[in-house]
Amino acid sequence: MAETAKALADDLRSGRKDPLDLVAEVYDRIDAHGDAALFIRLTRDRAEAEARAARERLRAGNPASLLDGVPLAWKDLFDLKGTVTTAGSAVLRGAPPAAADAALVRAGMRAGLVTVGAVNMTEFAYSGIGLNPHHGTPRNPRDAKVARSPGGSSSGSGAVVAAGIVPLSIGTDTGGSIRIPAAFNGVVGYKTSTGHHPMGGVFPLSPTLDTLGPLANTVEDCVLVDAALRGLAAPQVRAADVAALDLAVPDAVMFDDLDPAVAEAFDATVARLAAKGARVRRIALPELRETVAAMGRYGPLASAEAMDIHWDRLHGPDEALMDARVVRRIRMGEKMTAVDLIRLHAERARLIATVNDRLGDALLICPTTPSVAMPIGPLEADVEVFFHHNFRTLRHTAIGNFLDWCGLSIPNGADAAGMPTGLMICARHGRDAALLAAGLALETTIRG
Amino acid sequence: MAETAKALADDLRSGRKDPLDLVAEVYDRIDAHGDAALFIRLTRDRAEAEARAARERLRAGNPASLLDGVPLAWKDLFDLKGTVTTAGSAVLRGAPPAAADAALVRAGMRAGLVTVGAVNMTEFAYSGIGLNPHHGTPRNPRDAKVARSPGGSSSGSGAVVAAGIVPLSIGTDTGGSIRIPAAFNGVVGYKTSTGHHPMGGVFPLSPTLDTLGPLANTVEDCVLVDAALRGLAAPQVRAADVAALDLAVPDAVMFDDLDPAVAEAFDATVARLAAKGARVRRIALPELRETVAAMGRYGPLASAEAMDIHWDRLHGPDEALMDARVVRRIRMGEKMTAVDLIRLHAERARLIATVNDRLGDALLICPTTPSVAMPIGPLEADVEVFFHHNFRTLRHTAIGNFLDWCGLSIPNGADAAGMPTGLMICARHGRDAALLAAGLALETTIRG
Repeated sequence: MAETAKALADDLRSGRKDPLDLVAEVYDRIDAHGDAALFIRLTRDRAEAEARAARERLRAGNPASLLDGVPLAWKDLFDLKGTVTTAGSAVLRGAPPAAADAALVRAGMRAGLVTVGAVNMTEFAYSGIGLNPHHGTPRNPRDAKVARSPGGSSSGSGAVVAAGIVPLSIGTDTGGSIRIPAAFNGVVGYKTSTGHHPMGGVFPLSPTLDTLGPLANTVEDCVLVDAALRGLAAPQVRAADVAALDLAVPDAVMFDDLDPAVAEAFDATVARLAAKGARVRRIALPELRETVAAMGRYGPLASAEAMDIHWDRLHGPDEALMDARVVRRIRMGEKMTAVDLIRLHAERARLIATVNDRLGDALLICPTTPSVAMPIGPLEADVEVFFHHNFRTLRHTAIGNFLDWCGLSIPNGADAAGMPTGLMICARHGRDAALLAAGLALETTIRG
Repeated sequence: MAETAKALADDLRSGRKDPLDLVAEVYDRIDAHGDAALFIRLTRDRAEAEARAARERLRAGNPASLLDGVPLAWKDLFDLKGTVTTAGSAVLRGAPPAAADAALVRAGMRAGLVTVGAVNMTEFAYSGIGLNPHHGTPRNPRDAKVARSPGGSSSGSGAVVAAGIVPLSIGTDTGGSIRIPAAFNGVVGYKTSTGHHPMGGVFPLSPTLDTLGPLANTVEDCVLVDAALRGLAAPQVRAADVAALDLAVPDAVMFDDLDPAVAEAFDATVARLAAKGARVRRIALPELRETVAAMGRYGPLASAEAMDIHWDRLHGPDEALMDARVVRRIRMGEKMTAVDLIRLHAERARLIATVNDRLGDALLICPTTPSVAMPIGPLEADVEVFFHHNFRTLRHTAIGNFLDWCGLSIPNGADAAGMPTGLMICARHGRDAALLAAGLALETTIRG
């Protein structure tokens, strides 16, 4: 595991490390890593200015937060003042530079975080695989031989943390776009509850479902950066007692057609948790199949909302410049009627209420994705292979967005080839603190 | 003016009037009035049982509320336990009887109100004129010679109060369905803010826009029944000081193409208010034209939501049994796309925010409708004449629903033929208390 934000922050606060030296190290690592598809944009001048300011605060013994001076990378949906937010597309390359930082970027600056650049992503954040024909597809750093999917849509965010370049990257998650890259790259990904952080200045995919959150090496780092971004002096979350955990394993959808290695890793962790006294129980959640059925019957909510946002683009010359796979997904919203949308929202509200009722304060656990990261070659060669894998990869995480959960993906072992699998913990909307507390406990249990 | 709920309640409390005698009087008045289209259903057994219980409470000096024993009629959208809610249609005549009272009917019982029956309405509450081919169209009691529109959709609610049969009727308002019958029949109508009262057990037209409220002889009666239905021991609203009123007259839409008598009555009241020291000022509200444009561009929100509710009915044998004018309005929602609906909601949110900002704590005043109640003959003879008048009649009130206002229509003089005109006061969502306080002051000013 790469150095954590916590360890770096400790080194910065004690003076063992200098923020400007650290910035230089980060850019050296980017060069050494050599994947040109990782970053869409570097912001070295900004990073150096921010590091200089952090150095002054740290020397004065007056840090801006527990993470003052720690470098991070933003998914290229977040406006960085004076630069062009591409949203992973080619069509926005000529757009005007952002007039201001996104609200969360400003919060990051207030906490002393150092912005090193904008990382790659699926175009307009619309796939779980991470292919990008415009900026290249970042390679999954966990496989040095075969080019494998970095997951998506926050592809660069997962890869940049897994590669040890920066300890933190902020992504967005509308159907799994934080948790999938976390699982595929063997890092932690935290999808916050809707409304937990401000979305101002973040290029939208689907305003009803869009959320954001960190990818990091540990749950503790997620806790720390979440607290720092919320302006807290110290995190309010402590690890839960494993023996006090109430964990629910759903009986539907989440265990269909899993890669054997994924199923084995999950079962092994459940056994370890039970041995440590956690309550782990199967619960009947037929609503998970109803959720999948509703999305199939009416069409994806995200497609309808994306179609609104990209209407002009898809009815003009830009369409030909877009990834045809992304266009196809957005267009699924074009034929949806107003009545379909009303029914989808009503069905969603009903399912959220019913599932919240069944779940209560229990946390749901399941594999983050049914498979490990797959080789990119076949996905690029055949669009139907791509859609098969994309749909399967998003299956568990997208249910969480539809049901308005918060969620955490934690590395949970690996297959024979060393490709990581993820364990996902989900909680009702707003129960972020309980989610993170359980995450800290599970992480310790998994790492033994 | 017929006897007010307040005066009746005083007589009941002092023992000058007996609740059971009052019930008998009400049914005698219904017979004497002789309009078979006024009530869809009478509930005499229920009324007598409720009156008997009220008599006991009143004799014991323990009234259930300030209105204990006062009779009222419900629009036939409210479930009355054990009877069939027709929603003004023919197709629901064979539906199962309601298993329980609507939530507000239960609240009315707790307050000691006496339910005498369910009054007529436009089928499924979808027009502002009040024609009903299934149950007949109630005559407007203000014209003994010509059959004129009672307004809609709460047609029976306006007529039953104007005819002096009961002092109170509870209607619903999705585009003007309380305020229009109030204006046309020369009574007061109060459209509460969305969420002010529970909508459980009320047959929906458009859940986003549906609201309910009383039609009564005075604003004071509206204040009293609203308090009683909310379980308050006494109303919390007192008349505002006229000299402290801040009244805004919009510069757009509300004064286009008015009947001269409507314009004159409005101007005369404005002059009287100004003479009494009220601040009455024109304000620029270009958003009102944008509101009308948005409804035209994307289609009516109510049509889309009604299309969801009536989908099966409009795709089966029931369609032929429905009022073709109502079918045509609902079908305006059939072709609306999901993107249209998303944009309509976004535009609505933007317009609400902008107009609330411009309006601040001022109250908006305008004529409730551009015309007085029109003769029914030409409306029934030509569907295009009907649609012209329906659209024009709903013009001001529907803006209030779209902008999520609460509103009050107060009788404001009459034309040469004696047909009443209405003054509408509107306030931002949730400012019901300020609206009613101003209404009490305006009513006194108008009555001189």
